[in-house]
Amino acid sequence: MALDLNEMRHGTELLKRGFAKMQEGGVIMDVVTPEQAQIAEDAGATAVMALERVPADIRAMGGVARMSHPDLITGIIETTSIPVMAKARIGHSGEARVLETLGVDMIDESEVLTPADPFYHIPKNDFSIPFVCGCTNLGEAVRRIYEGAAMIRTKGEAGTGNVVSAVQHAHLVSEEIKWLQNCGDDDYSFAVEQIIEPFLKLEIASELGIQLETTPFGSIDECIYGVEEIIAEVKQKGRLPVVTFSAGGIATPADAALMMNMGMDGIFVGSGIFKSEDPETTAQAIVHATHHFKDSSKVAEASAMMATPMPGLEIETLDVRMEERGH
Amino acid sequence: MALDLNEMRHGTELLKRGFAKMQEGGVIMDVVTPEQAQIAEDAGATAVMALERVPADIRAMGGVARMSHPDLITGIIETTSIPVMAKARIGHSGEARVLETLGVDMIDESEVLTPADPFYHIPKNDFSIPFVCGCTNLGEAVRRIYEGAAMIRTKGEAGTGNVVSAVQHAHLVSEEIKWLQNCGDDDYSFAVEQIIEPFLKLEIASELGIQLETTPFGSIDECIYGVEEIIAEVKQKGRLPVVTFSAGGIATPADAALMMNMGMDGIFVGSGIFKSEDPETTAQAIVHATHHFKDSSKVAEASAMMATPMPGLEIETLDVRMEERGH
Repeated sequence: MALDLNEMRHGTELLKRGFAKMQEGGVIMDVVTPEQAQIAEDAGATAVMALERVPADIRAMGGVARMSHPDLITGIIETTSIPVMAKARIGHSGEARVLETLGVDMIDESEVLTPADPFYHIPKNDFSIPFVCGCTNLGEAVRRIYEGAAMIRTKGEAGTGNVVSAVQHAHLVSEEIKWLQNCGDDDYSFAVEQIIEPFLKLEIASELGIQLETTPFGSIDECIYGVEEIIAEVKQKGRLPVVTFSAGGIATPADAALMMNMGMDGIFVGSGIFKSEDPETTAQAIVHATHHFKDSSKVAEASAMMATPMPGLEIETLDVRMEERGH
Repeated sequence: MALDLNEMRHGTELLKRGFAKMQEGGVIMDVVTPEQAQIAEDAGATAVMALERVPADIRAMGGVARMSHPDLITGIIETTSIPVMAKARIGHSGEARVLETLGVDMIDESEVLTPADPFYHIPKNDFSIPFVCGCTNLGEAVRRIYEGAAMIRTKGEAGTGNVVSAVQHAHLVSEEIKWLQNCGDDDYSFAVEQIIEPFLKLEIASELGIQLETTPFGSIDECIYGVEEIIAEVKQKGRLPVVTFSAGGIATPADAALMMNMGMDGIFVGSGIFKSEDPETTAQAIVHATHHFKDSSKVAEASAMMATPMPGLEIETLDVRMEERGH
C-alpha cells in the first residue's frame, strides 16, 4: 500500500497533537507576503501564519476581518519550506474547509478575525487538519480542546505590542490549574459545571425558552463526559494536555523571555516583527531570546540587537477587545 | 579568596539596602544621553536613571513604554562614574533580568513604563540586584518591601512638573505611620488585613471563583507573616524600614526643599532637569537646595540660580495617571 503523506501528517488526534508538538520551544510569525515568510524562515521561525494584514492593521482598519485570499496563502505555501498556518473566523467551518483544501498545515480559529458564530466554535474533530485556538482562562482552553483543538495559545490582545494581556491569561490558566490540583470535591464539581455551562447556550435558551440537548460537539452528556476527562487530565498532569503557546502583544526579546519563563511552550509574534523598525533583526532577536529564555545574557544580547520595537497601544484606549471574542 | 566586586555590591538584603543607604540625602536624575549623565554627575547627583525618554516625553508620546535599549544604558554606564539605575515595567522579570545582566546598579520597577503584569510585581527577592519601587500610600510601600524592594520612592505624578501628587503621597505615608503608632489592637489588625488583601488577588476574575494559595512571593501565610513583620518594624521605628525618596513632579529648588522638609531621605528629579531652560544650573540648584533644605537662605540662593523651570501640567487635565498603575 502506497504511503499517503497527507494521511501521515493529518488525521488522528495523535498526529494532530504531534504536529503541534513539533512547534515546541519555537516562534510562529505572522507574515503577509512570501518575502516576509522568507525573512521569518531565515530567522528561525518554526512556522508562519499567512495573513492579508497583521493584527495591528486589522485593528486600525476596523470592519469585518475574514479569511485571507487563497492566492496569498498558496503563494506563501509555495515559497516556504516551514509549516504554514492560516486563520479562519471563529465558528466558520466554511473558511476552515477552504483552508484545509489549500493545504495549510494548521488552522488558527482566531478572535483576530471577526467571529462568524456567536454560539459555537468549529467542530474541529470533524476535520483531519490540526487546529490551534485561543483562550483567556482554563475553561476556554478545556472547551477548545474538547472541541478538537490540537494546540492552545493564550489570547493576549493582538496588535497592541502590549504584553500585559498575554501575562494576564498565562497567570489565569496557571493559577486555575494550581487551584484545581488543590481544591476539594465540591469546588471541583463546581469548576466542572462552570466549564461546561457555555455549551448549554443559555443565551439561546433564554430568548426561545428552549433547552439544548445537542451541540455541534455531541450531546450535552457527551460534552459533560468529555470535558470531565480533560479536566481530570489537567489536574493529573498539572498542565494543559496540548502544547500551549503565548500570543498577543509580544514585541521584544524580553517579552518573549518573560512568557517562556512563565511556562509557555512557545510564542506567536504577530505585528511585533513586521511593525518594528527592522523586521529582519527583530525576527532574529526574538527567536534568539525564545531559544535561550533561561540565559539572561543571551536575552540581553537579543535586546541589544533590536532597533525600535513596534509602537504599542495602551489596553484602556482600545475600541475593540479581540480577547473577548468567543468563550 | 579573590574579592568579587559584584558580590560585594549585590546579593544580600543588607547589601541591597546598604546601596540604597548610600543615596541618602542625595538627588537622582533622569538622563537620556552620556552627555546628560555628565551634567548630572558634575552637578553632584548621587546616581542617574538611564532612560530613552524622560517621563514628560513618555507621557506626550503615549502608547506602550518599555525598558530602554541596552546600548543606551551601557553607553551611560561606560561614561559615568556614579551609580546608574534603569527602569523595568511593573511585573516584567524579563526586562529586569536583562538590566541586571547589563550591570546597572539598581532597577526601578516603575509605573512610568506601561505595566506588564496586571496582578503581580516582580519577585525582587529572587534577584541579587537592588530594586526601588513607587508607592502612593503605606500599604503599597509595605507590599513592595515584602516583595524585596530595597528602597521606596513615593510615586508623585511623573512628567508633570507638578509637585502636588508627591506631597499627597508623602502626607499619606506619614499620616498612616502616625496612625499605626497610636491605634488600638483591632484597628491594627484591620490595617494589616487591608495591606495583605492585594496579595489574595481577589481581582483575578475567574469563572472558576478560585482562591489563591500561593503568590510569586510565597504562600498567603508567608505573605501575611512577612507583611506583619514589616508593619511591626514601621510601627516601632515610626518610618519605613528602607530609604524613602520623593519622586514625580519635582521641578524647582523649593520643591526639593519642601519634600526634604517633609521627611524624605532624598529626591528623584525626572523631567525637571532636562526639560528646564538651563539644565546645567537647574541640576546644580536642585542639588544645592536638597543638601541645605533646612537653610532657607541657601534654598533662596538656589532658586535665584534658576532660569525658567520645566513647563508643568495640571493633574486634572491628564489622560494617563501613572501613579495609579500597580498596587
